[in-house]
Amino acid sequence: MLRPELHLPPAPLLIRAFVAASPPLSRLHCFGALRLDRARPPPLRGKPSSTLRASASDAAMARAPEMAQREVAQALEAEAVARLGPRLLPSAVPADVAEFRNGAGNAVGSLDVRRGAPGSSIDFMLQSSLHCKVPNGAIDITSILIFLNASTDAPHFLMELIQGSRTSIVVILDLLPRKDLALHPDYLQKYYENTQLDRQRGKIDELPQARPYLSPSLFVRSAISPTAISISIDCGQGGECNLEEIVRGQLATVAKEFLQIWLDSCADSTAEMEEAERECLLKRDQTVRSKSIEVDLTANLPRMFDPDVSSRVIAEIRKAFGVQEP
Amino acid sequence: MLRPELHLPPAPLLIRAFVAASPPLSRLHCFGALRLDRARPPPLRGKPSSTLRASASDAAMARAPEMAQREVAQALEAEAVARLGPRLLPSAVPADVAEFRNGAGNAVGSLDVRRGAPGSSIDFMLQSSLHCKVPNGAIDITSILIFLNASTDAPHFLMELIQGSRTSIVVILDLLPRKDLALHPDYLQKYYENTQLDRQRGKIDELPQARPYLSPSLFVRSAISPTAISISIDCGQGGECNLEEIVRGQLATVAKEFLQIWLDSCADSTAEMEEAERECLLKRDQTVRSKSIEVDLTANLPRMFDPDVSSRVIAEIRKAFGVQEP
Repeated sequence: MLRPELHLPPAPLLIRAFVAASPPLSRLHCFGALRLDRARPPPLRGKPSSTLRASASDAAMARAPEMAQREVAQALEAEAVARLGPRLLPSAVPADVAEFRNGAGNAVGSLDVRRGAPGSSIDFMLQSSLHCKVPNGAIDITSILIFLNASTDAPHFLMELIQGSRTSIVVILDLLPRKDLALHPDYLQKYYENTQLDRQRGKIDELPQARPYLSPSLFVRSAISPTAISISIDCGQGGECNLEEIVRGQLATVAKEFLQIWLDSCADSTAEMEEAERECLLKRDQTVRSKSIEVDLTANLPRMFDPDVSSRVIAEIRKAFGVQEP
Repeated sequence: MLRPELHLPPAPLLIRAFVAASPPLSRLHCFGALRLDRARPPPLRGKPSSTLRASASDAAMARAPEMAQREVAQALEAEAVARLGPRLLPSAVPADVAEFRNGAGNAVGSLDVRRGAPGSSIDFMLQSSLHCKVPNGAIDITSILIFLNASTDAPHFLMELIQGSRTSIVVILDLLPRKDLALHPDYLQKYYENTQLDRQRGKIDELPQARPYLSPSLFVRSAISPTAISISIDCGQGGECNLEEIVRGQLATVAKEFLQIWLDSCADSTAEMEEAERECLLKRDQTVRSKSIEVDLTANLPRMFDPDVSSRVIAEIRKAFGVQEP
């Protein structure tokens, strides 16, 4: 239902990002992205694959770099798959969406969606990755979303890692609320206070390299929870080693804790709801998903991928989200 | 309806606050406070006023210090009163709540509540101030709240300034939303995007002395808007002059802009609402007000004032908020 946004920077920002390092990244809209690992060149509609192979930059894109952020995502995925087991159906994404690239050969991505098994509370698990070369480097985005259906009102799981240089990363990690927390203090207490999520948030917040990341989208700011980790970690020039260490260390630990809390408190939950309550939940889920796709994917994906590629990918995400084209 | 919280620091924090300066303040729960200016010793129930006069510390409290934060609040009050005119009824707070102090003479406060005139959209305007001596200094809190009734769904106005030393201040400034922003993107757009509030927030955020202030109360974090100013300004040791300048300068300017936007966009608005919508609004208002009083006033006021004084003050705030004792 709920599709986090991919807020890639508008084109001029994309270029500035790698001239001026972190400030433009700090203006990135999050969440949601497209996953990449070891992409094989998929057949692109309307373009012979020989065109792609002829491109030197494309050859360089045959594999996306191994990165700490991808290791973290893979570890979370493995944990979620192990715990959710048969509640996740096999992947059902067409090959040309599972892995895709743009004609210019400077961007590759992947998307995987596994629906929840009938009768389970899982709506879908979506993983996405994106690797996009820009003048002075590359942008790498990895996301994992596990969304629940209306058999429960428990929060969704969301992680997004957006790296615009070797020394800085934006992290969005949240149990995404599905109710108005100011109207439902019991819900706030159950999922956010009792689970001590804020203590986990604090572990990242206290890193000297961490600064709060405020999404430029007021909608994103409204949708995330009060215990969301929304920060940028900036190790400054020459801090490559430090950043990888932090991502593999403190960040990986806290991300696993968030997932663990979600698996323990949310993934198995069911909720008795009155009809009006369930309708409100469905409407909220739908609004957040639609709005996310609108302000994020449809605005940004076509900047990085050829129109036919971005359309295919967006259509697949809409299908997972259960959201129609407006 | 909606009563912002007064989150005075728990007793040990109050003491630490003035030994170790800003860190404990950064843990203060906000919002809501009690106003003080030039308090005259009011008659305290059950205590002869001679007892108070006999206290040396009490004599020292005859006047609270003039401070930049009080000037800012007074200027906002004057602007609001000028614009709202006859829509505000005269103050109706008993004398022993309008100004009050504790028996030990180390804390004085004042509270003023003006109800909205019948037929107007104003529910009440509440101003409060508190001055409390602590071992190494004093804590000063000034608040202005202007709350609307259910003839409109427009946001309330809220400002709270909490100063724990001469060099640092916590600022909460917001148009407090009355709807679930993730469910109502149109509301978000109308009151928060179209009004360019985030640009005002940015003016304070970019001050080199400003750091985000994250309330320890998840409820407060959930209740404020995505454009809320929630920061601490810390001028460090010896930075007295700077802080007063910032409060009288950039902070005063932005606070006036917030009030102006509220006066222009919210104070006169009315909203056609279906019965179910109005019920939801009323329930939300009520929940936020009750929760605020619970986690704030009833927990904290008795730490600073004698029980009879805090009871009187809390009762008056409950009355303004339209919230019953639980």
